[in-house]
Amino acid sequence: MEKLAAVMLGDGFEPVEALAPVDALRRGGVRVRTVSVMDGLQVTSAQGVTMHADDGVSDVDLLGFDLLVVPGGSGGVDNLAKCAPLADALERFMAEGKPVAAICAGPMILADLGLLEGRKATCYPGCEEGFPAGAYQDVRGVVVDGNLVTASGPGQALDFGMAALRVLAGDAAADRVAADMLIAG
Amino acid sequence: MEKLAAVMLGDGFEPVEALAPVDALRRGGVRVRTVSVMDGLQVTSAQGVTMHADDGVSDVDLLGFDLLVVPGGSGGVDNLAKCAPLADALERFMAEGKPVAAICAGPMILADLGLLEGRKATCYPGCEEGFPAGAYQDVRGVVVDGNLVTASGPGQALDFGMAALRVLAGDAAADRVAADMLIAG
Repeated sequence: MEKLAAVMLGDGFEPVEALAPVDALRRGGVRVRTVSVMDGLQVTSAQGVTMHADDGVSDVDLLGFDLLVVPGGSGGVDNLAKCAPLADALERFMAEGKPVAAICAGPMILADLGLLEGRKATCYPGCEEGFPAGAYQDVRGVVVDGNLVTASGPGQALDFGMAALRVLAGDAAADRVAADMLIAG
Repeated sequence: MEKLAAVMLGDGFEPVEALAPVDALRRGGVRVRTVSVMDGLQVTSAQGVTMHADDGVSDVDLLGFDLLVVPGGSGGVDNLAKCAPLADALERFMAEGKPVAAICAGPMILADLGLLEGRKATCYPGCEEGFPAGAYQDVRGVVVDGNLVTASGPGQALDFGMAALRVLAGDAAADRVAADMLIAG
């Protein structure tokens, strides 16, 4: 059955961290919606790239998705952190073991919601301050802990998207996309 | 003096190959304009991401830039290949040794214009058919040959952007951005 992913966007999102997962997931056959938490569909990234989100957060039911993707970029994360429907959905996803992927400053939202207790995760160096004891994995890369995919920064954005695709759609889809995109996968 | 780069966009561009260079270059202090070769400023990538370019190609003088970036995505490259001002500018840049960066299917445009004679370049595997003898470097990575930066595919997009930044703005800027983005640089 077709899988459905939401990539959450607030003004100031890191463009590569948001679009590498969109790219990898769509290539892998996942139906991806980019979802703006701003007033309209127009969102502007860190480094000033303006794009149109597919949906506004008030127009979708985040609980109907199979994967939530939380990109970094500190301004974007500040905006995502204010989004109550996203917070509710992240709590439900983590409680139910549904896939959640967060990168760079994104995992701070999970930490602030108390969702990293007993979990393993990484983030941009310095963003681990609010992590519970034992959660932070000090790597430059991707950490997969069951349903939870986290990664450290822009340099890991494609690997992060690939890992989310692998968790959501399986090895065959991920291996095919990794070959197409000329990445190790 | 501030450097000025144009990232050329036609409908069907590969989003990571276009935006990773925008991101790396802007972080490095380069003034980047995304330039649409379509009728309007709205451009839609491969994998369906719609963004606003900063300029239309008819509104800028490409010869006034210090770097031209040609992303891949076969649909995007088809559109770029039809753009006469881009072809003229690429010919001038290559003749004058000004920086040109092309990735994935992008280097095909250079090959078709006869600009890879005596040069070393790479591209997405299979796109090297029109390369002159001796030009193609069979790597999954980035090839820097003086003013010419080429790379193989999406998996190399950040390294490609970093290499373009290094050629245009020097090692200090590139090293700083590589550290910020958590990439090898």
